Amino acid sequence: MTSSATTAPELLVQSWYNTDRPLLLAGLRGRVVVMTAFQDFCPNSVAVAIPQAKRIHETFEPKDVAVIGLHSTFEHHDAFSTAVLKAFIQEYRLKFPIALDQPNPAGPIPHTMDAYKMRGTPSLVLIDRLGVVRKHAFGPVDDLRLGAEIGALTQEDGRALVLARSSAA
Amino acid sequence: MTSSATTAPELLVQSWYNTDRPLLLAGLRGRVVVMTAFQDFCPNSVAVAIPQAKRIHETFEPKDVAVIGLHSTFEHHDAFSTAVLKAFIQEYRLKFPIALDQPNPAGPIPHTMDAYKMRGTPSLVLIDRLGVVRKHAFGPVDDLRLGAEIGALTQEDGRALVLARSSAA
Amino acid sequence: MTSSATTAPELLVQSWYNTDRPLLLAGLRGRVVVMTAFQDFCPNSVAVAIPQAKRIHETFEPKDVAVIGLHSTFEHHDAFSTAVLKAFIQEYRLKFPIALDQPNPAGPIPHTMDAYKMRGTPSLVLIDRLGVVRKHAFGPVDDLRLGAEIGALTQEDGRALVLARSSAA
Amino acid sequence: MTSSATTAPELLVQSWYNTDRPLLLAGLRGRVVVMTAFQDFCPNSVAVAIPQAKRIHETFEPKDVAVIGLHSTFEHHDAFSTAVLKAFIQEYRLKFPIALDQPNPAGPIPHTMDAYKMRGTPSLVLIDRLGVVRKHAFGPVDDLRLGAEIGALTQEDGRALVLARSSAA
Repeated sequence: MTSSATTAPELLVQSWYNTDRPLLLAGLRGRVVVMTAFQDFCPNSVAVAIPQAKRIHETFEPKDVAVIGLHSTFEHHDAFSTAVLKAFIQEYRLKFPIALDQPNPAGPIPHTMDAYKMRGTPSLVLIDRLGVVRKHAFGPVDDLRLGAEIGALTQEDGRALVLARSSAA
Repeated sequence: MTSSATTAPELLVQSWYNTDRPLLLAGLRGRVVVMTAFQDFCPNSVAVAIPQAKRIHETFEPKDVAVIGLHSTFEHHDAFSTAVLKAFIQEYRLKFPIALDQPNPAGPIPHTMDAYKMRGTPSLVLIDRLGVVRKHAFGPVDDLRLGAEIGALTQEDGRALVLARSSAA
Repeated sequence: MTSSATTAPELLVQSWYNTDRPLLLAGLRGRVVVMTAFQDFCPNSVAVAIPQAKRIHETFEPKDVAVIGLHSTFEHHDAFSTAVLKAFIQEYRLKFPIALDQPNPAGPIPHTMDAYKMRGTPSLVLIDRLGVVRKHAFGPVDDLRLGAEIGALTQEDGRALVLARSSAA
Repeated sequence: MTSSATTAPELLVQSWYNTDRPLLLAGLRGRVVVMTAFQDFCPNSVAVAIPQAKRIHETFEPKDVAVIGLHSTFEHHDAFSTAVLKAFIQEYRLKFPIALDQPNPAGPIPHTMDAYKMRGTPSLVLIDRLGVVRKHAFGPVDDLRLGAEIGALTQEDGRALVLARSSAA
């Protein structure tokens, strides 16, 4: 594995909620990042992925794991507005930072979704403490397996991991 | 019980979906009516009441039981639009008639919601074959109990019931 | 439908629990009877059918609906004893009458299970107020549909039903 | 934390199932051990803890994580027999090693349950690769949190951990 191939693309965001300043992945180095891409009108996002993101946010220490919701509007553009997203955040009582993916005037797929080549929503991305994508899943993800993956990532020794990857590159 | 006290108020609707013509309760006499009032941004509507309405629609014969969804927008007016409702109906694959409750310019509560004095969403109203409200519940309703109530209503002999009510009035 | 073809066979029982005297179906005429055949070591009995029987017992009035559990031991005979059944009743806090199906020395299938030609456990039998079998299902049964069936049976006019069946026979 | 205080007591077992030879914790060093203490007649064991143990067994590699079921019969002794346990293992399709806790002639609590001072069933014990108890829980345990704990334990560097504990002792 070479780090260059899988370093997480930086977020391109129109607006943020539940945070007093914009976040950059570069600023989250040292923490495991769990990013859940969702849409308000996507049944599996609402029923499965968002509740799971809430559980992750409530289970791990913020110093170890950062949870980010990414609203990637790629369909139903006519129904979406920031008021829709605000109502959703309020009604579902989301407390973790939520990013509205930057729309792309050239097409329906917003920029961050495109950069990660996501297949749809919900999508889940795990990024390790060095900023490398370690998991990328489309659709529902099992709690036990995901917990294990996050738990393992929190225990990785960053320095040792860099050396191992360098030698394998 | 007197029928005058509990006859179901007629629906006041801005627009209909999943039906080629507007429905009136008066036109549904002879069938049990299950009306589920909901909102797209209401978690219990989305997670509990709408899936239950789908199950009812799939379980009973249309000639016996009519299922109606009523979107009663009483909060988050800035987030709502008919495009929001259309996206919801499409994504949740709703096949039964959906009514958009008639807004009231004088306040946030739409007309049908107001006429039924609903406390919020989700609300469930059962109307018997004679057009009388027989159940009115706010919040999640148990499947077994609701099934029993609908099943019992489908077996009522309309004529006998009218006589009984008249004599008790 | 002729009543002779489907009148519920009488129960053949080794021992009763949660009742101070043995029950006979003949003694339950006028009430809808819900009989759940189960085994302590049958996963779907334990996870699905027994909890459903508890919900039925808690939802309907005893004067309308009688719930009976029938432990039909047709496998794992070496593991079963009345102590096993008593432990099960206690741990799962069952309050409705439980019958231990009468073993048949000639084979593994106990008598009541055989009389009803059950295919296995869990099996559910609905018996109407006149003692006629109206539903016989093997495996999990949907709450909404079952509720509707029980609810409808509780509303049947016994006299009218007899006439209808007589004329159809 | 001192290792002497929390080294996992060795298993005292009457009989084993799903393994061709008895297991000792001493022989599992280098692997994380998940031990689920259960009883066949304990509702939370059957509905929650045993399905979770199955998921753990299916999620992790055997070289990383060993799952052990421990039937600790501390109540309903008259109902229990090895035939009961065998029927349970067969019906619930358990594939991981199951130990029958060694009965204690002096009282109702079997030996391993007593050595671990378990409060009842289900109980879950996590043992790290060095043989140290790292978690001991009574009652249902959350999948996400448990996955994280197991995942983290699989990543620990045994040598470093010993040194850390020694310095803290």
